[in-house]
Amino acid sequence: MTNDSPEIKYLFEPHSVAVIGASLNPNKIGFKIVQNIIEMGYQGKVYPVNLRGGEILGHSIYTSLEDIDGEIDVAVIAIPAPFVLDAVKSCGVNKVKFLIIISSGFSEIGNLEEERKIIHLARKYNIRILGPNIFGYYSAKSSLNASFGPGDIQPGHVAIITQSGALGVSMIGKTSVQNIGLSAIVSVGNKADIDEADLLEYLVDQIETKIILIYMEGIHDGAKLVRTLKKATRKKPVIMIKSGRSKRGALAAASHTGSLAGSDAIFDAIIKQCGVIRAENVTDALNWCKYLSHSPMPSGLNTVIITNGGGIGVMATDACEKYGVKLYEDAERLKTLFHDITPEFGSTKNPIDLTAEASGEDYIAALRKALDDDRIHSVMGFYGETAFVKAEQLANMITQCSQEYIKKGKPFIFSTFGGYHAEQIITTLSRDNYPVYRDVYEAASCLGALYSFYRNQMDISHDVDELDVDIKSINRIVDEAMDDDREFLLALEGQMLLEAIGLSCPKSGVAHSISEAVELAEKIGYPVVMKVISRDILHKSDVGGVLLNLENRNEVIDAYQTILHNCKSFRTDVVIDGLEVVEQIKPGTEVIIGARRDRAFGPIVMFGLGGIYVEVMKDVSFRALPLSRREIRLMVKEIKSYPLLLGVRGERRKDIRQIEETILKIGSVIQHCKKITDIEINPLVVYDQGKGVKSVDVRVLLTKNERIE
Amino acid sequence: MTNDSPEIKYLFEPHSVAVIGASLNPNKIGFKIVQNIIEMGYQGKVYPVNLRGGEILGHSIYTSLEDIDGEIDVAVIAIPAPFVLDAVKSCGVNKVKFLIIISSGFSEIGNLEEERKIIHLARKYNIRILGPNIFGYYSAKSSLNASFGPGDIQPGHVAIITQSGALGVSMIGKTSVQNIGLSAIVSVGNKADIDEADLLEYLVDQIETKIILIYMEGIHDGAKLVRTLKKATRKKPVIMIKSGRSKRGALAAASHTGSLAGSDAIFDAIIKQCGVIRAENVTDALNWCKYLSHSPMPSGLNTVIITNGGGIGVMATDACEKYGVKLYEDAERLKTLFHDITPEFGSTKNPIDLTAEASGEDYIAALRKALDDDRIHSVMGFYGETAFVKAEQLANMITQCSQEYIKKGKPFIFSTFGGYHAEQIITTLSRDNYPVYRDVYEAASCLGALYSFYRNQMDISHDVDELDVDIKSINRIVDEAMDDDREFLLALEGQMLLEAIGLSCPKSGVAHSISEAVELAEKIGYPVVMKVISRDILHKSDVGGVLLNLENRNEVIDAYQTILHNCKSFRTDVVIDGLEVVEQIKPGTEVIIGARRDRAFGPIVMFGLGGIYVEVMKDVSFRALPLSRREIRLMVKEIKSYPLLLGVRGERRKDIRQIEETILKIGSVIQHCKKITDIEINPLVVYDQGKGVKSVDVRVLLTKNERIE
Repeated sequence: MTNDSPEIKYLFEPHSVAVIGASLNPNKIGFKIVQNIIEMGYQGKVYPVNLRGGEILGHSIYTSLEDIDGEIDVAVIAIPAPFVLDAVKSCGVNKVKFLIIISSGFSEIGNLEEERKIIHLARKYNIRILGPNIFGYYSAKSSLNASFGPGDIQPGHVAIITQSGALGVSMIGKTSVQNIGLSAIVSVGNKADIDEADLLEYLVDQIETKIILIYMEGIHDGAKLVRTLKKATRKKPVIMIKSGRSKRGALAAASHTGSLAGSDAIFDAIIKQCGVIRAENVTDALNWCKYLSHSPMPSGLNTVIITNGGGIGVMATDACEKYGVKLYEDAERLKTLFHDITPEFGSTKNPIDLTAEASGEDYIAALRKALDDDRIHSVMGFYGETAFVKAEQLANMITQCSQEYIKKGKPFIFSTFGGYHAEQIITTLSRDNYPVYRDVYEAASCLGALYSFYRNQMDISHDVDELDVDIKSINRIVDEAMDDDREFLLALEGQMLLEAIGLSCPKSGVAHSISEAVELAEKIGYPVVMKVISRDILHKSDVGGVLLNLENRNEVIDAYQTILHNCKSFRTDVVIDGLEVVEQIKPGTEVIIGARRDRAFGPIVMFGLGGIYVEVMKDVSFRALPLSRREIRLMVKEIKSYPLLLGVRGERRKDIRQIEETILKIGSVIQHCKKITDIEINPLVVYDQGKGVKSVDVRVLLTKNERIE
Repeated sequence: MTNDSPEIKYLFEPHSVAVIGASLNPNKIGFKIVQNIIEMGYQGKVYPVNLRGGEILGHSIYTSLEDIDGEIDVAVIAIPAPFVLDAVKSCGVNKVKFLIIISSGFSEIGNLEEERKIIHLARKYNIRILGPNIFGYYSAKSSLNASFGPGDIQPGHVAIITQSGALGVSMIGKTSVQNIGLSAIVSVGNKADIDEADLLEYLVDQIETKIILIYMEGIHDGAKLVRTLKKATRKKPVIMIKSGRSKRGALAAASHTGSLAGSDAIFDAIIKQCGVIRAENVTDALNWCKYLSHSPMPSGLNTVIITNGGGIGVMATDACEKYGVKLYEDAERLKTLFHDITPEFGSTKNPIDLTAEASGEDYIAALRKALDDDRIHSVMGFYGETAFVKAEQLANMITQCSQEYIKKGKPFIFSTFGGYHAEQIITTLSRDNYPVYRDVYEAASCLGALYSFYRNQMDISHDVDELDVDIKSINRIVDEAMDDDREFLLALEGQMLLEAIGLSCPKSGVAHSISEAVELAEKIGYPVVMKVISRDILHKSDVGGVLLNLENRNEVIDAYQTILHNCKSFRTDVVIDGLEVVEQIKPGTEVIIGARRDRAFGPIVMFGLGGIYVEVMKDVSFRALPLSRREIRLMVKEIKSYPLLLGVRGERRKDIRQIEETILKIGSVIQHCKKITDIEINPLVVYDQGKGVKSVDVRVLLTKNERIE
């Protein structure tokens, strides 16, 4: 994309659409697209194009683009792959803004070269490309159905972006059955140019779109996606299905798409960081879209469950905990509110159990009390079929209360369970977009999705904390290593890098005499470790070349002599370059802090407790950069072994603040030094609160091929 | 239950049923029950009973039980709680075998006393009781619907046992809508006498019942349940929903039912150990019941997915991994099989992707190839709606293949996704019990449930390994502590207990002279620890009363003198009872092994890695006793930190066999010594393979109130 590229708005709201490859054969894609455009009522100009000419559905077919007398905002290309490049050229000459390349036979089958040629050519003409390998797209704003999918898309408030064409086509059918209206559905296919982030730019500000649903298999430019998603989720809920969650699924995804699947753990963490609500499957995702596009937003977290059975109430409570729905807990207030309408054998504790004997009136009374109370922010009604409430009464109750709740701007959701009547009510009311579901888990998951969005609005930090790192010094260290033809830093260089960003490493120096050794030790502070430096000695410890726990001047003097003696006993002609005197690190809690330039997401950071916790227990947290201190705090808190940092078994709290600062520093380095691909401090020894941290070892990897971001 | 109690068979297949509280008022429960019994075609004798007499639906009402001329197998009691006890007496006198107490107002509202009285009286007469606080029950075998639930239950192969009455009534409706036939549905309510285990005794051997579904809130007698479930799951799938999974849900369950909810982690582990398939919610549970009651059993694990879209294939792969469905991986063979019918852009790797262009014929051809191949054991077909397969073609494909698969005894499942036609096909075919589902996750979960059952048949061990423990010695130790009025063992007693079962503890002894100390140390082996024994000294270490790392005779002699000197410096009149000489334990991997008499499940064992892993990471496994060595091996392997025992970071494998033996030993103690409620070895230090384990510390709790089991 360049600065001269057309605004993405023209993709969704074009004044004219050409279809290159328009066909007279109703079985061909090139016919179906023209038919969908015309029959779904697109108001702009339609130009079918085909070398052979003729007429299609009352429109004459142009034999070439040149014959078209007017601007072309969008050209849909539905011709075999080998002819696409020529068509792109012709579109370029005729100043087309967007190309919708339906044709397949490109990178998805390994034909990367042809795809690259097309993109290269399109860039030259400032044309943007959707696809290739897609079924097209639909934009409700322009009543434009430029796809070969079903011809009866219902306009509405959900925008879908899908990487799978087949799934997209099926979703059009499914949303229609479920009466979920669409503001847009866009097939992105190979994402050779336009990707999810580009489309979000438009959809986020478009008024008709209330919810955005993305089906994703792989990511091209994660850093851009992160930026755009963060912006998008401030304004509207973004729900995402990403397949390839499992190990085998990731393999299947990798073989199915050209793009990078990446680790699902990282993906999951970062998507969450962006405020995206992730769905496991299509059923959940569509349920959430439907519910969220009609529900008001809550004004607080307190949810009340009203039920007619203890068993259902317990299951509902389980489901609420699973989906992060918080139950209101003020027992006194609940009692005051619901006491009169709860029978003796029921319960006024949340869930409010009206018992199986509750009549429709009791139910409505309870739902209204909850509606009128300002301390209750959302309400779930669960009703197991009994003989006490007739079917039509139940239906009335749901529609009536639902309307009252919407009017008052309070979320409401209902689930009923039973025989034919219950089933009928769900089918009918759900089609009319009343919030009624078949299972308490289904209902709780919908309200949970709403609350995910609500919490994100409150929790997610859009600040960015960054540190001024001394890039010059770091680059100097890195460049020296590169000059040395290395793609990694040596231990001492790594230490210099850490020192350049103000991280404390074990102090050390090299002594060539006893007096120098003593001087160094006094400067470093006791206890110290002494090690021989000699290229003749491979295993220093084995020959007595390392001595630990040197507590004072005398022990340093002794050690100096002992080490020299030991080494000479090992080999009389040994060449000794000096003795290293190193600060002896006090034991503390060991953690790992890493940062890397992820192939999918760009710069990311990771954090976990040292050794076993990361390696065996996989207890790690990830975030994409940039980050605020607040987000880093959440990232540190997120690991399961976090209580160890708070101090267990009588230990004191550790210096968590310094862990956070270290993450911030390492993150700043990876963001600003493009030649560094990986930094890992392992271990970082953490002392008690206020006592700081110490980086014992650091590994830094470099690259000669800086990525353009 | 006594030996003279009637066989549970007569509950399900009674020759005669009396209804005490039969009513002429059609709005009363006492009317509805009689109506359901008569109208659903019960063939035995029906005796309505009501003081006021009269006639109901063509049957004359008896004014008392005495007037009935013949045996009464079952009496349903539907009168207010205060009158129930008298009715029980009258039933006892008239030799009724089973009482179905519909009435509520007993333990569920805290009225435990009345419930106990009823049970006590019933025991006297060898009557067994179902309930109280239930909606009744249905048995297809006798066409007996002795409930006030819906009157149109469809006979079939699923037996339901439900602790929630309201949920049970709704499930009758729901199963009818889903065309799931029932062999029985039994409401167990307060489970004052008959519980799930009793009912399983009958259902397990009853031919009509193919699947058993249990909805459970709390457990009365877990040990009995474990025994029965283990037997049941050998023969047929048992699916269980247990609500109260979450912390808050468990609280709600505890307030809702009288019975013990217990920890869900323990429940989950033990249910799994019994081979039960646990469902999270009713939707899953009923889906599984429906699928499992019509599917053949697989003859192996290899599953093949046939799909028409890459995206759906990836999601299906994720779903299979989630639900434990193993995909066939022989790429060569798959290629040979499916090569001809897979287009160039498709994939013959599992999932087999026939692409969106696949016709109905292609699909059928692929499904038949999979059916005919003996190395493929089950097949999933996923179809996203396209224009290439017409609706009726799709329906034919599903019905035809489904029949062929059933005929050949191979599991098959299908999922389709799209618009009205797809939806219509699912609704119609599913009602006719063809295995077709709305979402790939739904389908994978059904096949996963089938494979859970299949794996259990192969994996679950029904052997029991037990050790001869020296109960006499242990009881002697325990009795002495009890005589001392303690409910715990002292350190030394605990050690004696461990020694009695052959577990090795740090060796130790008390010395009163230097020569004794040396003698002890030589016997124990160096290094040793020495500690002063004195009631005058509370904190031994603080006064220099403990010395570690004593490596030889001379150091022991020095230590003896130093400790005495230190203690006398602390207080000149100190009384010293001796010096303890203790084996100094070498460091190793620390684990925790526990056994306890669980309030819900009876004797259970637990295992986890020491300290942080158990306390912070909650990385623990549980099992109910008795156990086989094989099950113990699985239990040890199950923890996430298991790789630590295999040796990470260059460490050697630990002595896992000795861990297993220790679990077995501790388990045997808790099983046989009823006065012991808790044993916890923490830590058990584990050395390298072949080097054994050492119990450093043990905590043993006792009880004066032995439970009867």
